[in-house]
Amino acid sequence: MAECCAGPMLLLCLFPFFAVALGSSPCPIVGLPLVRNISEIPQDNYGREGLSHMTVAGSLMHGLKEVEVWLQTFSPGTYTPIHRHSCEEVFIVLRGSGTLYLAADSVGKHPGKPQEHFIFPNSTFHIPVNDAHQIWNTNESEDLQVLVIISRPPFKVFVYENWSMPHTAAKLIFPYYWDEQCYKEPPKDEL
Amino acid sequence: MAECCAGPMLLLCLFPFFAVALGSSPCPIVGLPLVRNISEIPQDNYGREGLSHMTVAGSLMHGLKEVEVWLQTFSPGTYTPIHRHSCEEVFIVLRGSGTLYLAADSVGKHPGKPQEHFIFPNSTFHIPVNDAHQIWNTNESEDLQVLVIISRPPFKVFVYENWSMPHTAAKLIFPYYWDEQCYKEPPKDEL
Repeated sequence: MAECCAGPMLLLCLFPFFAVALGSSPCPIVGLPLVRNISEIPQDNYGREGLSHMTVAGSLMHGLKEVEVWLQTFSPGTYTPIHRHSCEEVFIVLRGSGTLYLAADSVGKHPGKPQEHFIFPNSTFHIPVNDAHQIWNTNESEDLQVLVIISRPPFKVFVYENWSMPHTAAKLIFPYYWDEQCYKEPPKDEL
Repeated sequence: MAECCAGPMLLLCLFPFFAVALGSSPCPIVGLPLVRNISEIPQDNYGREGLSHMTVAGSLMHGLKEVEVWLQTFSPGTYTPIHRHSCEEVFIVLRGSGTLYLAADSVGKHPGKPQEHFIFPNSTFHIPVNDAHQIWNTNESEDLQVLVIISRPPFKVFVYENWSMPHTAAKLIFPYYWDEQCYKEPPKDEL
C-alpha cells in the first residue's frame, strides 16, 4: 500500500472538506432551490487528482448543522488519506469497487493496525468515531463512486502519513468552522 | 390531497421508525458484517401498504448514535403521514417522481400551510427541523425510491391528520429510545 501524502504536499491532497475552509465565499449561499438536481451541483477535485467531490447537502451551502452528504468519485488507483475524525460516517457504494482499510484499535496518536475489507456496488458500511480509515479504489478499470454521510459538522480530522507512524501536530487539520454568523477562522490549537 | 390516516388506523400507517419500537429484538444485532450488501438488508412495510423500508444504517441495528440512513420505496399513489420532527432530514431521489409538501410556517400544534415541490430522479432536498412535511408518490406509473438521512436518532415525531387541523396529544408519537444499555420504554409524556 503506497503512502498517500507527505511533507509539503499534504495540504494539496487532503479530503475536500479541508478545502472548503479556503473557499472564497464562506457564507451560506442563499437563493438555492429547495429541490436541487444533483447532476447540476458543482464538483471540484480540490487539487486532488482523480477525485470528484460534490456537496449534496452541507452546512456552508445549505445551512445544515447535524449532517452532511457528499458524492465522491475516485478514479482507479486513487484514495483518501489515512485519517480519523470525531464524527460518524456512513458510506454507500453506488458503483465500482475497492478496499476499505479500517483500524479498530486507533489510540491517541497511533492509527492502529488496519484490516482490509472489500467494498462493492450497492454495499454499505460505517466508520466508528475516531477509528482510522482509508478508502482506496483498487479496481484498475472502473471509477469508485460513493455517497458519504457524516454527522456533526464541523469536525476535527487527524491525518496519518502511513499506518506505522503516529500523527503529529502538523497533521492535525481543522476543516471549516460553522457558527451562527457564518464562518470564523479555525483556532490555532495543537495537539 | 387525500388525508393519510385517521382514528384507530393511525398506528398502522405511520412511518416505519415507529414500528422499530415494537420489534421483538430491541438490542443491537451483533455479528453483522462490516460491509453489507444493501440488497440483502431486510425490508418491511410495517403495515403500511405500498411501502418498502430498509434501514441501511441505524442505531438499533448498527449502533449509530448521530445519523440513520434508510432506503424507502413508495408505490404509485402512496405517501407518508403529514409530520414534523426535531431532527434534520435529507432526501435523495433515486428513481421515480412525486411531490414534497412542506410548510415553512409550522408553529406549535399547527402544521402551517404547505408549498408543493416537484421531486424527480437524481434530485435532493432537505427538511428543516420541525417543518411539517409529507412525501407523496404522485407518479401513477412508477415507484418512488428515496434515500433518507436523518440526524440525532431517536427523535420525537408529531403527526397531523391533515393540513388544516392542529395535532393533539394522541398524535404525538415516540419512536424507539436508544441508550447505552440498549433500549428503554418511551416516556408517557403528552403535549
